[in-house]
Amino acid sequence: MTCSQLNACDAGFVARLDAELPRGTLRPVAAGYLSEPRGRWQGVAGGVALPRNVDEVAKIVRACHAACVGIVPYGGGTGLVGGQIAPDGPAPLLLSLERMQSIRASYPSENVLIAEAGAILADVQAAAENEDRLFPLSLASEGSARIGGLLATNAGGVNVLRYGNARDLVLGLEAVLPDGQIWHGLKRLRKDNTGYDLRHLLLGSEGTLGVITAASLRLFPRNHAEGAALLVVDSPSAALELLALAQAKLSGMISAFELIGGMGLAFLAETMPQVRQPFPQPPAWMVLLDLGVPDGIDLPPLLESVLTDAMTRGLITDGLIAQNAAQRAEFWEIRESIPEANRHIGSVSSHDISLPLSDVPAFIERAGPELARIGAFRINCFGHLGDGNLHYNVFPMPGRSRADHEHQRDAIKTCVHDLVDAMGGSVSAEHGIGRLKTGDLERYGDPTKLAAMRAIKAALDPVGIMNPGAILRRV
Amino acid sequence: MTCSQLNACDAGFVARLDAELPRGTLRPVAAGYLSEPRGRWQGVAGGVALPRNVDEVAKIVRACHAACVGIVPYGGGTGLVGGQIAPDGPAPLLLSLERMQSIRASYPSENVLIAEAGAILADVQAAAENEDRLFPLSLASEGSARIGGLLATNAGGVNVLRYGNARDLVLGLEAVLPDGQIWHGLKRLRKDNTGYDLRHLLLGSEGTLGVITAASLRLFPRNHAEGAALLVVDSPSAALELLALAQAKLSGMISAFELIGGMGLAFLAETMPQVRQPFPQPPAWMVLLDLGVPDGIDLPPLLESVLTDAMTRGLITDGLIAQNAAQRAEFWEIRESIPEANRHIGSVSSHDISLPLSDVPAFIERAGPELARIGAFRINCFGHLGDGNLHYNVFPMPGRSRADHEHQRDAIKTCVHDLVDAMGGSVSAEHGIGRLKTGDLERYGDPTKLAAMRAIKAALDPVGIMNPGAILRRV
Repeated sequence: MTCSQLNACDAGFVARLDAELPRGTLRPVAAGYLSEPRGRWQGVAGGVALPRNVDEVAKIVRACHAACVGIVPYGGGTGLVGGQIAPDGPAPLLLSLERMQSIRASYPSENVLIAEAGAILADVQAAAENEDRLFPLSLASEGSARIGGLLATNAGGVNVLRYGNARDLVLGLEAVLPDGQIWHGLKRLRKDNTGYDLRHLLLGSEGTLGVITAASLRLFPRNHAEGAALLVVDSPSAALELLALAQAKLSGMISAFELIGGMGLAFLAETMPQVRQPFPQPPAWMVLLDLGVPDGIDLPPLLESVLTDAMTRGLITDGLIAQNAAQRAEFWEIRESIPEANRHIGSVSSHDISLPLSDVPAFIERAGPELARIGAFRINCFGHLGDGNLHYNVFPMPGRSRADHEHQRDAIKTCVHDLVDAMGGSVSAEHGIGRLKTGDLERYGDPTKLAAMRAIKAALDPVGIMNPGAILRRV
Repeated sequence: MTCSQLNACDAGFVARLDAELPRGTLRPVAAGYLSEPRGRWQGVAGGVALPRNVDEVAKIVRACHAACVGIVPYGGGTGLVGGQIAPDGPAPLLLSLERMQSIRASYPSENVLIAEAGAILADVQAAAENEDRLFPLSLASEGSARIGGLLATNAGGVNVLRYGNARDLVLGLEAVLPDGQIWHGLKRLRKDNTGYDLRHLLLGSEGTLGVITAASLRLFPRNHAEGAALLVVDSPSAALELLALAQAKLSGMISAFELIGGMGLAFLAETMPQVRQPFPQPPAWMVLLDLGVPDGIDLPPLLESVLTDAMTRGLITDGLIAQNAAQRAEFWEIRESIPEANRHIGSVSSHDISLPLSDVPAFIERAGPELARIGAFRINCFGHLGDGNLHYNVFPMPGRSRADHEHQRDAIKTCVHDLVDAMGGSVSAEHGIGRLKTGDLERYGDPTKLAAMRAIKAALDPVGIMNPGAILRRV
């Protein structure tokens, strides 16, 4: 069947599909499925399907394909760009993977684990640990985010510097394509050059080219010892020199290299005083350096020698080395509490951007003055500096509220994104496009790439049923 | 223009195109362009174009697109599966990137280098070294293979275990798509989630979806110290246990883990006696373990402690540790001379396969007896064990020649590939599909993936001008 437009997932369609599936697969839409963490959108949906296996997923997709009904794949609902929610258009069917949670198999000697799309990240991490292995994907929402969504959005997080983005952790996929056909691609191979890499095409396509139902994931040896240091630096530029030094000396052992700005510490002090401040005087900039080493390597002297060297070169002016696991956890608590402190303050506009590494300092220097031309703001700039990924968030001055600046929001976003784009950066480093940034993609995306994306979407999903309106705006 | 079939690159087309391009861009086809390393095919071509920049490439592709003339992109000509040669069909235009050799820029502090597609791999390695960095892609043909071809085929080589396949070394691409549009995608970002990953779609597509003209490549810190050991193991299974032990103790520092079989040593002794045999009695199996460590880590005691542990556990029965760079080079000479020894002997059939790591021993155990049902052969099984990638090559018995077995060649290939496929492996681990393995792809490829590949090809290259007949057979 071909259709000129999508049909709503109405009661009749739900009833017909319900009859084809085991009882309890199709359910009324609970409110939780129709909201999202930023509270920007309210979703519409004609029903939610909770399949238990890939064959049921295929049956659902085939039915939607035949009836030209849209499908919004739903993982943990933690996405920050509205990829999991359709605020308008004909009501879609939500397809939640939450009942496909199993770890199908693990192969510790191969460093491989096969997880279903509905498995929660923390459970996958635990399953790996249970085999004395590490699954390194780690981010704030790991207690509720599900593998399928994390892969569909090519999630980032804190360990990208060492282990790569989510896409780099995937050896194979099982997925249902928009026509309802199942791709049995759960390979456990490190090398496989047999045609186009459909895996990488689905990873990061945010559910617009198919539904990921399971993945074979790369595991790593666990670190024998781990350590962390909080290091005061004079500037982002000094932080980058420190990174280069640390990489030369600790190549392959640095798990995270996080930038924390003084504004973040101030927000913490203001809204979460229970989080202990690391230094008596909050520094303008500091870095959280985290590392892990295998057996046979003595971490403390290695770390100390790097820091001594950095101190001698004037790259760090003060620092704390975690003396034990509890102290390392304390350092991380500071870093991980900043997003919560941000929510307490209430940002006017948040930006998940990346830049060529060496351009990060220039961006930070230029963005502040440019924003000041729009108005007076507080800026909390922090994030995964090792990946060139900043969370560059703009807040009202004390005494003002985000509502006071609502009218400036678009101007702020455009100001930040224009500068990022002019410097060769990305306006979505790790969160994806979803429905929040479709306009940004059109504005900043390479036209040839966009044309190719549209051609691929039309080829694989001519009806346009898969996550309609995400990544590519509906025309 | 749409066409029902491709037109030959005839004298008229060449003349028209020649008039649009700087003198010397279009040339008659020298014989070297029409042969390939395996000597299996003789190519046809109506001319060769040697553009000097991406705009000239775009002009050439647009002209071919308009005239429905096929294009075969040509790099170093080192491919082993006939991806660079069109043996039949309407004569295509060869598009050689050999005059686009420059290193456009390097950013050592970012660990990034931008190379044009025609740059020879060894030159890119040297450019990285010049910045005190490492570009880790390394394989036998590095003195003549060019970056564009290496990326288009997602080349593998000896350092995949540590640094990944060619695709993992690419941050961004510049490419000309089949309609002649230029994709300006030379980003230098570690995180960029702005739509479908066109980069990974082109990487490994073997020139069938576009022409890569330049790439931004990931560099790494150079190792401060390097070491190697040749280790005698009882079996491939013991070799894999050794790998697991070494990974736990040397995580992230093992650069290569190569399997060498007794037959390879025997072939060396027979055909290349100048290569010194490492052990008085050639062992049935041995492993070449190569590692590199950053400054601050003392390599010799670390390696010794791993080997002592492996010895205690009975995983290795004998071994040599390279005492200096010359000895390490000697170890590598043994490994790298085996393909040449193979050529002297003359294989009946060669197989570039990969398997789930833990299934490698079972494959080796089963494949020999199955082949014996076809005839009596010598088998040289060696390769990148750390990646599950074996070069499983079948040779005549002494006194027989490959010609004696020509009639069994297909049966041998099918026997090996059927077993690989049944065990979840790949019939092309690192060489690609080219024109040699299009039938294998049809036989073993997942039907849903194949359908998606055909849909993508038709969407991006409806006329079918890009490397016609490679990967997907012409219909």
